Amino acid sequence: MPQRKLDVVLDSVKRLQRMGATANLVNLLQKQHPADLAQLLSELPDKDRQSAFSLLVERSSRLGMEALSELGPEAGAALLAGRSPEEIVKLTQELASDDAAAIIDYLPEELAAAVLELMQKRPTGGEVGDLLEYKEQTAGRIMNPKVFALSEDMTAGEAIIALQESRDVEMVFYLYVIDARRHLVGVVSLRRLLLVPPSTPLKRIMTTDLISVRADMDQEEVARQVASYNLLAIPVVDEENKLVGVITVDDIIDVIKDEATEDVYRLAGLAGDDRVFTRPTDSLRKRLPWLIVNLATAFLAALVVSQFEGTIATVTALAVFMPVVAGMGGNAATQTLTVIVRGIALGELTWSNSRKALFKEALVGVGNGVACGVLGAAVVWVTQGDKWLGGILAMAMIINMVIAAVAGTLIPLSLRALKVDPALASSVFITTLTDVFGFLSFLGLGTVFIRYLQRAG
Amino acid sequence: MPQRKLDVVLDSVKRLQRMGATANLVNLLQKQHPADLAQLLSELPDKDRQSAFSLLVERSSRLGMEALSELGPEAGAALLAGRSPEEIVKLTQELASDDAAAIIDYLPEELAAAVLELMQKRPTGGEVGDLLEYKEQTAGRIMNPKVFALSEDMTAGEAIIALQESRDVEMVFYLYVIDARRHLVGVVSLRRLLLVPPSTPLKRIMTTDLISVRADMDQEEVARQVASYNLLAIPVVDEENKLVGVITVDDIIDVIKDEATEDVYRLAGLAGDDRVFTRPTDSLRKRLPWLIVNLATAFLAALVVSQFEGTIATVTALAVFMPVVAGMGGNAATQTLTVIVRGIALGELTWSNSRKALFKEALVGVGNGVACGVLGAAVVWVTQGDKWLGGILAMAMIINMVIAAVAGTLIPLSLRALKVDPALASSVFITTLTDVFGFLSFLGLGTVFIRYLQRAG
Repeated sequence: MPQRKLDVVLDSVKRLQRMGATANLVNLLQKQHPADLAQLLSELPDKDRQSAFSLLVERSSRLGMEALSELGPEAGAALLAGRSPEEIVKLTQELASDDAAAIIDYLPEELAAAVLELMQKRPTGGEVGDLLEYKEQTAGRIMNPKVFALSEDMTAGEAIIALQESRDVEMVFYLYVIDARRHLVGVVSLRRLLLVPPSTPLKRIMTTDLISVRADMDQEEVARQVASYNLLAIPVVDEENKLVGVITVDDIIDVIKDEATEDVYRLAGLAGDDRVFTRPTDSLRKRLPWLIVNLATAFLAALVVSQFEGTIATVTALAVFMPVVAGMGGNAATQTLTVIVRGIALGELTWSNSRKALFKEALVGVGNGVACGVLGAAVVWVTQGDKWLGGILAMAMIINMVIAAVAGTLIPLSLRALKVDPALASSVFITTLTDVFGFLSFLGLGTVFIRYLQRAG
Repeated sequence: MPQRKLDVVLDSVKRLQRMGATANLVNLLQKQHPADLAQLLSELPDKDRQSAFSLLVERSSRLGMEALSELGPEAGAALLAGRSPEEIVKLTQELASDDAAAIIDYLPEELAAAVLELMQKRPTGGEVGDLLEYKEQTAGRIMNPKVFALSEDMTAGEAIIALQESRDVEMVFYLYVIDARRHLVGVVSLRRLLLVPPSTPLKRIMTTDLISVRADMDQEEVARQVASYNLLAIPVVDEENKLVGVITVDDIIDVIKDEATEDVYRLAGLAGDDRVFTRPTDSLRKRLPWLIVNLATAFLAALVVSQFEGTIATVTALAVFMPVVAGMGGNAATQTLTVIVRGIALGELTWSNSRKALFKEALVGVGNGVACGVLGAAVVWVTQGDKWLGGILAMAMIINMVIAAVAGTLIPLSLRALKVDPALASSVFITTLTDVFGFLSFLGLGTVFIRYLQRAG
């Protein structure tokens, strides 16, 4: 819903809540799409959100739970956390098992255990517990175990009848074909089923060359396959190639968005679940460790500067311009790092073509260094009237920007080779390096050529 | 395809190219999926990529062009740029018009014009030109104008026959229903069509409450709608609500990936099309302006430092620790900025809840400032034996980190209100601010309390 329309509805919701006009409020909420309801709920203050959700879920538990699911598992779990395990079991039955599992995983530990125990006693309740057996961020965790499959011995006509009789199968676009022991053997499109005579055996019209993923595959790799092969859904199999679930493209979109956020976040030293409205104490707890690591490295750079205190006392202009050299190295390094990290994430950069990337970035580093160095030297010369100081600034900047380019390429690639997320640790290494080498080159050159520089005072 | 398998095929391709074993090479290439071919091509050196593509497209123009399309429009256009307009027109007919339009848009200007002129003369060639009439990054630009639609006067049985007779309609999951003047009036799912008796009128089973987008809507907004409503495709209409095309979820995935890259890139001051293997001169040209803007702001910060040259000459330890204060402000600001920018991009942060976000970030800023300040002060006290210097560092750091938090929230929100992309300009403003206020607060306090500080030497 466009923001403007949303704001209007939101205002009405708030007004009806203030007036206590429950019946009107429920009427208004029931007319909204679950995705819009989720957005409305997310914009309400905590207490009002809880009461609006309670009203809604009492009248229409399906719609209420769909909206809750659209809110995301963390916010969704928060809305349920005050309820009894029995209520939660009943409400989560309105959801697909993968969505239910994601929410239960975010409930307080004891509550989650109680919910799962109750679920095990129900006929189909074991599904949610089974999903939670898979490791986080794997295909098994995000798949829907309710997958519609056809037996390879069926005919096209029998398949259409089976489809017509099926319930609870919301989105069917690929029809997977299995053998007697549930091994995945083929796929037929709904359209193809309509085009052949009803007596045609499925075996004759199915495609056997199909793409599937193992339940333990990382969700990011699953997303990459769905995206690169333009699929609408991908079947999930166990280690024996038995069909255990299906992942649809809407879940893949969520994965792609989350992984993109993760990349941006890691470059800035943020945890993935540190969002705009995370509680201040939680945000603080999540951000502080990263800042303390940075504080340690900042003191490392300060240690370099302290080696040159004598030089600085003599030529204070060096202290004025040293942050320029360090900062420009940092900016250039961030550019290189971002291109490389994103290239790795999008699968464009691999080991085999990394030498080419390194060579390119080094060249760009030289170019940027020379351009910024010459410009910077000119500014220093004009404003300070000291051409030696300008020359030293230019040289230090070229050195630092080439180091920035090489390190910005090699550090993420090395981390990747060590199976560490390249976005996570790169930026702290890089800024330390560009600070240390920025100060070292500029103040070092300043010390060497000190007799040519203008003294302070 | 997994990287390992890809490397094996890549090695074979290279070997066969060296040996000149054309027939074997074509055989190997023809067995690959277009998406895998695209990845293989992207890993070959420029010359070998050109020759492999030529071989492939000669034998199987459909497969070759599908692979080229998967490479992305820029790289795809580069592979075609050496060919005649006639050849290009013939080859791009293998593609959907939206993919063809994207590629032609990246051809050198004169060549693109010649291609479009030739296309106009063909019966259906006008489509590509029509698509290019829409503004970049709008729904019209990425839609497929070949949309399968049913007339509202049909019955379910007639609709199935129409579907069976349709050609060139690859993915049909929603069947859009139009009136006699092509206005979009409803939608029917294929599954629903199978469930009702053939004589049922479409009017009775179609949903009239359907979500569509205008052709001039920004593609990011289209992606947000498809993602939040979990759609597989969204119909595109003109200003009179006439059906003009359809956007499928695979195109939406590309949009989401591109927009995520754009956000990461803009925070680092990079142009969206500056990728790992962009030519060095192009990358240089794209990155240098941003670095020069940063150079100017770095000199602004240096100007602040230069006001305190006298203080620094007296207490050189101030020069040692001033980058720590400025740098920590920058790190904290980057964290806040990233949370806010991503919150805006994901639609979580709006004007109505921005005060809450500001208050939260300010609180986190105070917390981080106190924690890092106290820790930093302790380090300075222990290593320098100067408790006044430590105290000044702590105070300056608290001031700077609160400024960082407030600015990191307000700057992107203000840019957003001014309709400027918040990711684009925020980071340069922010680092300037944290540098300037870091130096100003630390050196300013140092000047005020100079008689308590230990002198150099």
